[in-house]
This record gives sequence, C-alpha cells and structure tokens, in this order.
Amino acid sequence: MPLLVVGSVAIDNVETPQETRSNLLGGSATHFSYSASFFTSTRLVGVVGADWPQKHTQLLNSRGIDTTGLQTIANGKTFTWTGRYHDNMNDRDTLDVQLNVFGEFNPNLPENYTRAKYVFLANGVPAVQQNVLSQVPGCRLVVADTMDLWINTAREDLDELLKKLDGLVLNDSEAKLLTGTENLALAGHMVRDMGPKFVIIKKGEHGAMFFSEHETYVLPAFPTEKVVDPTGAGDSFAGGMMGYLAEQDNFEPQTLKTAMAFGIVVDSYNVEGFGLARMQEISREDIDGRMEAYRQMLSF
Amino acid sequence: MPLLVVGSVAIDNVETPQETRSNLLGGSATHFSYSASFFTSTRLVGVVGADWPQKHTQLLNSRGIDTTGLQTIANGKTFTWTGRYHDNMNDRDTLDVQLNVFGEFNPNLPENYTRAKYVFLANGVPAVQQNVLSQVPGCRLVVADTMDLWINTAREDLDELLKKLDGLVLNDSEAKLLTGTENLALAGHMVRDMGPKFVIIKKGEHGAMFFSEHETYVLPAFPTEKVVDPTGAGDSFAGGMMGYLAEQDNFEPQTLKTAMAFGIVVDSYNVEGFGLARMQEISREDIDGRMEAYRQMLSF
Repeated sequence: MPLLVVGSVAIDNVETPQETRSNLLGGSATHFSYSASFFTSTRLVGVVGADWPQKHTQLLNSRGIDTTGLQTIANGKTFTWTGRYHDNMNDRDTLDVQLNVFGEFNPNLPENYTRAKYVFLANGVPAVQQNVLSQVPGCRLVVADTMDLWINTAREDLDELLKKLDGLVLNDSEAKLLTGTENLALAGHMVRDMGPKFVIIKKGEHGAMFFSEHETYVLPAFPTEKVVDPTGAGDSFAGGMMGYLAEQDNFEPQTLKTAMAFGIVVDSYNVEGFGLARMQEISREDIDGRMEAYRQMLSF
Repeated sequence: MPLLVVGSVAIDNVETPQETRSNLLGGSATHFSYSASFFTSTRLVGVVGADWPQKHTQLLNSRGIDTTGLQTIANGKTFTWTGRYHDNMNDRDTLDVQLNVFGEFNPNLPENYTRAKYVFLANGVPAVQQNVLSQVPGCRLVVADTMDLWINTAREDLDELLKKLDGLVLNDSEAKLLTGTENLALAGHMVRDMGPKFVIIKKGEHGAMFFSEHETYVLPAFPTEKVVDPTGAGDSFAGGMMGYLAEQDNFEPQTLKTAMAFGIVVDSYNVEGFGLARMQEISREDIDGRMEAYRQMLSF
C-alpha cells in the first residue's frame, strides 16, 4: 500500500564532537520517506525553495519516492537547520533555524494523494497537520509526530488533533511535558487517554515504548558503536515502522510490534552516517539481516 | 549451587517525592541475597552493629539465607544511608552516610563459605573485594560490582581486581567514568578489555547491556507504572541474575542471557515497594509469571 508523508524537507548543518558537515539533505519527510522506501512506495508532501539542489530530489526518486507533492517556491529559500550535538550524541543545541518557505507551508494534496490509506503527519504546526488530515478522509491509519514547541504554543490545536489520530509518536521529554509526569510507563497511557489509539514514546539510544489499550511494551535500541549523526533518527524510526505497516497492509497488534522493531533497526542504520549517507549504502537485505540479529538478541 | 555474597548490610532512610521512610532494611548484600533466595540458597557475609534489629536477620533466614557470615560488632553501629530521590525517581542525592562498622569491614569467611562456587562481590573497597576473592580459590564464577568512588580513589586496586573477575556489573555513569567514552556500546567492550570476561552495564529504567567477546546485547527494563523506591535495584538485579546462574549451575551464553532477564524481572518487583516490602509479597511463581510476560513482550 502506498504511504503518504507530509513534513519538512530541509538543508541541515550538523556539528558533532568529531566532525562538522554542511548542506546535508535533511528534514522529517526526507528521513521518513527514505526509510519507508525499503518497504513500500512513498508519496512525499513538502516544500523547498529555489536554492534546492535537484540532485536531492533525484536521490529520493531513485528510491521510488513520489515527489509530485514536493512544491518548489520560486522566490523562496529552503528550510535550514543547524545544530550541535553534545559528547553523549543524544542531547543537542539548535544553533540556527531558518524556516523560510516551510514557515508558510500548508499544502493542498495532489488529487491522487488524497486516496492514501496510510498517512504520517511528521512534526509540524498542529493546525496544518489537521488540514492535511481533512484531505485524506478515507485513510485507514494515520499517525502523527509532534514536538515541545507545539505542546507549549498550540496546545488547543494539538488536543484537537490528538482526538483524530490512530497513533502518536513523540519523544520521552515531550511525553513528560505533555502529561506532567516523569514516569514514562504512566505518561504513555496518559497521552493515549488524550485520543490516539496507540502511543509510541521514542527514547533515543534507549529504544521505544508502545502503549495501546491492552498492551504496554518496551523494545531496546539496536546497539551500535558507531553513532555518527543522530539527526532524523526519530523520523527514520517512524519511516521504517509505517513503511512496514503499509507493506503488510494491516496494523494488528503483532504487526505493530514487528513494525516498531523494523523502525528501530532502520533507525540504527540512519545514525551510522551523516544525513542519509549510511542509508544510501544499505539494502532491504541488510535491514532483514540486522532484524534477524535483533530478534536473536531478544530471545532467551 | 549455593551462592556467596559479600557486601553491605545497612539501615536506609529514603525520601521520595511522595513519601519518606526511615529504618528500612537495606544494603547491597541484603537486596542481593533476598532476590537470589528465589533461586538458590545464599550465604551472606556482612557486618552490623549492636543496634541491628534481630527481626531483620530473621527475615533473611526465613528466605533460607545463611547469615552465619553476618558478623555483629558489639560496640559498633550499623552502616546507615539516607538519600532523596528526584522527581524522575532515577537520580538521587545522598543526604547522609554513616559507614560505622562497615568502614572497617574486611571479612574472614567462615570455613564452609570458602568452598563457594558462585561468588558475588557487591560494591565495596576493591582491596577488600580482592581479599575476599583470595579466600575462595575454587570458585567457578566470580562477579563484582563497583562504583564511582572506587574508580576515582582506588583505581589501581580496582584495575588489579578487574583482571581476576569473570564478570563486572556497573551502572552507565560508572562505565562512562571508567572508560572516558559516552557511547555505552563502546564503553562495555572497553571495560571488558580491562579484564572481565563479561561486562553488564545497568541503565536503571532503561534496562541493561551485556558484553562478552562474541556478544553485545541490550535488554529493556520491565515497564512498571509503580516505581516506589529504586534503592537496591542494581543489587536486586544482580541477585536475580546470579541466583539463576547458581541454580542452573552453568554460565553458558544462553544461560547468561536468561539470567540477565531474570535479574531484570526481579528488579522490577524490588522497585515497587520501599526497601524489601514488595519483595516480601511475591513468590517464585510471580517471578516466573512476569518472566513469561517479559518474554512475550520481546517476541515479534
């Protein structure tokens, strides 16, 4: 089943304790769709400016990602993000954000996109996420991401959105902020009470937690010694997960758990290189191989 | 197989955001042996003062724990620890430590203890840990714990000890301190290069990582909404793990992984009450039941 993602497409500048890299292909929709492309055909909705290098679009197309929904604003500039990672490669400081054309982003979906059955609303203004959602009335599964900024500044819109979601993914600090509790096992169910049928809390190097009415579980991250650039890790996780769900065309409890495991495995590759560098070296066979190692790791 | 543990026996005073409790039965050897007692007979070596309530010894004996090695210093006072947990129930401040009789602790093992095959050297002065180790020349498996204090103040003794160990358990911040790296997947193998055949890094609410020559794996914590008092969690984990190994009387790779899972499961009960309160309510059947839920959680 085709998968629709709506989110940011960006140019990233990343500083790590080891190295600095500029002009990386970034953005939530980019990391998501690249990861999802190993599982299913993905339709991307986003916006870029006149400065956007055409080679980036070509790279996405080479993975079978449909970029019909990637709008170019002729007199605008592409969203850029500049950040610096701490020694722990988990915490980071945002040094500069230029929203540019993404600041006005409120897309009208191409007609064939509106029949999408699997939809991911990457992190963005909740009102815009809602507007997109209203354009895919027949979708079977809609999952969204959010962030602290919207929890703090657009809480009413976010609360409205939450009621319409099948799933929400958010990170641990956002779950604590949204619920006011420090206990993640509790926070997950509190967020679920706000609307989503299931909630996934991303814990970075510590894996992810899943919450539904009848289930609570945790899966660890796949351990890697080679963390080069964690940018986009959460979106890559979501892309692997949603890609697998769309491929399987079901979201039964056991499929959801396997999907979460695939998300973790794909994400573990994403962090092994700057931007999408490592992702460009791997194949579905690599992912399946690491998935098998991950299954073995959790068998006793 | 009987299991020997050498470590602290203490009176704890614990403040959490919810509640304050005084005069709890605490200490590393206590939490360890109580957890291990669900799997095997355990011999405890420790020291207390004249103020030690006899009912605590009776509680340990009621679990089949051999306290022949628990020495009472007639004119001394028992080790006491007072601490306050932060809102996240993970970080804590030590408000007061009175080492008392534990400050001079350097035990001579009872003769029948010296034939122990499974030995756990709970956190303590590395030179004392070495002295104990020299008294069990025929042991098959020796595992130790350590802490930041010894890494900072007794590094040479600790380095000597590490060369003699089969296994070392330590927490994430200690692993980072010992190796100077923030990447735990890397740190685990760096600690292993210092001597132990295997290393386990405890990550609190995020589970534990295992490192041997041929294996690296992570198991998540069992998610519990009810974290009442994390004191002794690491010792409880080690007790469950070592108890299972001694019960199985082998430490093959697959047994070690199952043992670590049992450690995590037992530990998840330990934090659900102050001191040993929750542990006194459970049976081996409860542990096996939660272990089955934990296995299911990690199956996909």
